[in-house]
Amino acid sequence: MSRPIDFYFDFSSPFGYLASLQIDTLAERHGRLADWRPFLLGAVFKVAKTAPNALVPLKGSYSERDWERCARLLGVPLTLPPDFPFPSQAAGRAFYWLKAQDESAAKELARALLAASFVEGREVSKPETVLEVADAQGLERAAVEQALQDESVKQRLREETEGAIERGVCGSPFIFVDDEPFWGNDRLAMVDLWLERGGW
Amino acid sequence: MSRPIDFYFDFSSPFGYLASLQIDTLAERHGRLADWRPFLLGAVFKVAKTAPNALVPLKGSYSERDWERCARLLGVPLTLPPDFPFPSQAAGRAFYWLKAQDESAAKELARALLAASFVEGREVSKPETVLEVADAQGLERAAVEQALQDESVKQRLREETEGAIERGVCGSPFIFVDDEPFWGNDRLAMVDLWLERGGW
Repeated sequence: MSRPIDFYFDFSSPFGYLASLQIDTLAERHGRLADWRPFLLGAVFKVAKTAPNALVPLKGSYSERDWERCARLLGVPLTLPPDFPFPSQAAGRAFYWLKAQDESAAKELARALLAASFVEGREVSKPETVLEVADAQGLERAAVEQALQDESVKQRLREETEGAIERGVCGSPFIFVDDEPFWGNDRLAMVDLWLERGGW
Repeated sequence: MSRPIDFYFDFSSPFGYLASLQIDTLAERHGRLADWRPFLLGAVFKVAKTAPNALVPLKGSYSERDWERCARLLGVPLTLPPDFPFPSQAAGRAFYWLKAQDESAAKELARALLAASFVEGREVSKPETVLEVADAQGLERAAVEQALQDESVKQRLREETEGAIERGVCGSPFIFVDDEPFWGNDRLAMVDLWLERGGW
């Protein structure tokens, strides 16, 4: 099997959520796996001196309409939680803590966290919400609670974020097929074609 | 025939150029015309407090790679002129001056100006280049030269730009199907589907 596709996303990103619903099927169609790599988009905004689209004049109202339209086209629910756009440190830490033990369980947790935000409209910025979602996934609450405070887990998320920026990640979702970069949920069709043709 | 599709673009936009090669065929497939409406993206950047992607850290190098990849996929040439990203007042003024007389000729001029930038790598920011391109289109040089200085022509471009911003245009290209907004060359497939289904 070829190298996994790198799937970078921020837990607070509506397009990250929409891409998360499609990326594994897309990868598997080409005999690949998708390596889910949440990062902190806020760090990209600092480097690029930009802001979340939701907060940018003109882009904000367009983006909201566009997210909803893309979700309707996919036939999936999309709601924006009250804390949107939100800091996703707690979600990212829980994910990497679990990924070190069980990658498949970490993906399931990520799916549940994205659904908590964008389907159920819950505030995933709050560690308490992350603990509740993890609990519903059968994870031990005390262990997750400790992980969220663990310095090495925090460091792991920082390193993933720094590594993403070093590779040129400039938004969420961001996908690498081998070393070819693709930014945006609206690049998935192109990722599909790139995998099919082996580039062009 | 239904209402034309509004095709907003800045003459300095590589994705505007790529969309310009596809928009008329797309519109005609659905029994529509495309109304070409160049505007000044710089005015959007002022309102949105953003900058051209080419000048934004991380986004700049990604964008250049993405433009070239999109052009290769379409099988069309793409070069970035030395003045890129450039102020496109002269091109926009020549366009609207001609559009008031002959819409079809104005589209041809627009195509020639976009090709001058993105195929031939010429500096369309310079009025002299616009005059040369117009001359090659068989337009009278003195008349175009006068138009570029005409206060009512300048005002027309300003009004188009202000009107675009009032409608929510936040980038180039930007397309309205009736009042449904679509931002980006990578939304053309969705525009096609929207026209086919009458929305969703």
